Amino acid sequence: MLLKVEGQVYRSIWLAADGVGGEIIDQTQLPFRFVVVRLETLAEAKAAISRMLVRGAPLIGATAAYGICLGLREGVSATSLEAMAAGLISCRPTAINLRWAVERMLRVLLPLPDELRLAAAYHEASQICEEDVVTNAAIGCHGAGLIEAIWRKKGGDGPVHILTHCNAGWLATVDWGTALAPVYKAVAAGIPVHVWVDETRPRNQGARLTAWELAQEGVPHTVIPDNAGGHLMQHGHVDLCIVGSDRTTSTGDVANKIGTYLKALAAFDNGVPFYVALPSSSIDFTMKDGVNEIPIEQRDSEEVSHIEGELEDGQIAKMRIINPLSPVANYGFDVTPARLVTALITERGICKANPADIQKLFPER
Amino acid sequence: MLLKVEGQVYRSIWLAADGVGGEIIDQTQLPFRFVVVRLETLAEAKAAISRMLVRGAPLIGATAAYGICLGLREGVSATSLEAMAAGLISCRPTAINLRWAVERMLRVLLPLPDELRLAAAYHEASQICEEDVVTNAAIGCHGAGLIEAIWRKKGGDGPVHILTHCNAGWLATVDWGTALAPVYKAVAAGIPVHVWVDETRPRNQGARLTAWELAQEGVPHTVIPDNAGGHLMQHGHVDLCIVGSDRTTSTGDVANKIGTYLKALAAFDNGVPFYVALPSSSIDFTMKDGVNEIPIEQRDSEEVSHIEGELEDGQIAKMRIINPLSPVANYGFDVTPARLVTALITERGICKANPADIQKLFPER
Repeated sequence: MLLKVEGQVYRSIWLAADGVGGEIIDQTQLPFRFVVVRLETLAEAKAAISRMLVRGAPLIGATAAYGICLGLREGVSATSLEAMAAGLISCRPTAINLRWAVERMLRVLLPLPDELRLAAAYHEASQICEEDVVTNAAIGCHGAGLIEAIWRKKGGDGPVHILTHCNAGWLATVDWGTALAPVYKAVAAGIPVHVWVDETRPRNQGARLTAWELAQEGVPHTVIPDNAGGHLMQHGHVDLCIVGSDRTTSTGDVANKIGTYLKALAAFDNGVPFYVALPSSSIDFTMKDGVNEIPIEQRDSEEVSHIEGELEDGQIAKMRIINPLSPVANYGFDVTPARLVTALITERGICKANPADIQKLFPER
Repeated sequence: MLLKVEGQVYRSIWLAADGVGGEIIDQTQLPFRFVVVRLETLAEAKAAISRMLVRGAPLIGATAAYGICLGLREGVSATSLEAMAAGLISCRPTAINLRWAVERMLRVLLPLPDELRLAAAYHEASQICEEDVVTNAAIGCHGAGLIEAIWRKKGGDGPVHILTHCNAGWLATVDWGTALAPVYKAVAAGIPVHVWVDETRPRNQGARLTAWELAQEGVPHTVIPDNAGGHLMQHGHVDLCIVGSDRTTSTGDVANKIGTYLKALAAFDNGVPFYVALPSSSIDFTMKDGVNEIPIEQRDSEEVSHIEGELEDGQIAKMRIINPLSPVANYGFDVTPARLVTALITERGICKANPADIQKLFPER
């Protein structure tokens, strides 16, 4: 879809014009500043992932792929390739696409002679990006069908109200998004939608990124505190939920941004369909029990105790918002058990969140 | 219990030394500044309630009672009394104690001759405060029994982990608190506790007020984003939840700060006991269906789009934290259905959240 920002179209990651650096949007500065950052070295790519200049499982994977290209410019041996792979994977423990993309790069590059690795790496990174776009567009088409069905069931009366948590949009992928791809495709098909955007504390990626993205595209939306979704569902103001996933088990358990589980509980309690949109690269076929097996990243307490924003004079500042000296815990993700998930929306179609149906859609895994 | 701040003991509201003004702590400035404000007029009392210098159902009631005293200084007729009552009640629609306290004042004052009203009002306001202290101390004793039982069941192994939402502590009442009274009583009895403090967006009353209060009292606690509670419960890190209530129906449905319902769902899903601590003045015996009958206050969108905090240089500032121009919704409360409530902790004891058991405890209502 290529989001338009200030009259120019963008993907969320691309190869620089010189064919060397990777270019990204510094998402920590959105929505207050739109800043493009050039990644020149492996260390910069790792920092961009750890410091969350880029985030979102698919985009982390794409950035890691370019990180390997940059790393290979410093050394092309198999040993250094394996070291850089391990270093990249350790940047973010929960999102499985990071590992998926790095392992895919290794699979292609390790068998090659040293002198062919660099060019092959750039080719493969570009492939990962192109495939991500196609994958997400397909997720969008399948998911838009669900939105359209609900719209028809409502008799075409008013917009379809969709609740989403965190950002699983254009900014979380190379293009289109996962959870937001169905929204964009539905809008393109002329179906009226309205998105409830969970603020998504502590990093406020809903209020900052999803709201920004939807505003750029002119999609009607309302930002709400994370606490509000249950109330809205109790009163019939949500027609369906769509969220993304950082890792999904072979049994359909879904790790996603902390708080997703609470919305899934509320959706279940109120008979609201709860969909998870994900590329199959987010499925971890080695895991069966999400709550007990998926590692949950714990992040810096300052993400909770402090917040960034824009002062009245336009300055970007950071300030403390909790009682000084009170300890803080900061878990990045939680796991929504499959029993609370209505269905998974994948690039191959929609399936129930259970081992048999997932297997049927991906028989080769 | 009389919280100690900077070496001095306080209640959260008191009659000024001159016997005229009411004095309160400006809770909008906590935890960054401890500022006592003198209320001189009815208008000031109303503003303190609307602008949330005071909040918490019982404290709103007490402030309204003193508001009537101040209003009577400007006019003691029955007509003006009724007008000031209506004006006060409209300040905050969800908390029933506001109406309860104002109606109690009217019941006492309206039958009196004009010249006796002012003195009687001060007497009754003081009575309301004294009774609130006794009520909350009793809630504390009953609730501490529950905490102690869990501690014994755990074999005295480690602290009892209690999750609470928003602030239903000392600051929400005249003294002791409702949800926190059991915590303070348990600590006094030597039972080790640790409190998970929900940040409680959008006004952050957990991170600002509950954390501050617990820190003053030296009670171990950890501030968490509202999104984290489900994850903690899934992993066995919460032994029980205790929250307050702004209004409870005769059937046991509980209106409390937005997001409470989500925590009740998570507690239910994980077999964690979910208790609501409340004075019987918070029970609305005229209502049976909380979700459909309790009016839910909608507040200014700036409470969501902007936040106050402390800059690095110690200055208190306000800044925008969401995408500019994105619309916002701000519901103050939600309703937790009785089926998710393990029991109510009242001043008369503990009862199941159902009409028969509530009736048994309050047969006169």
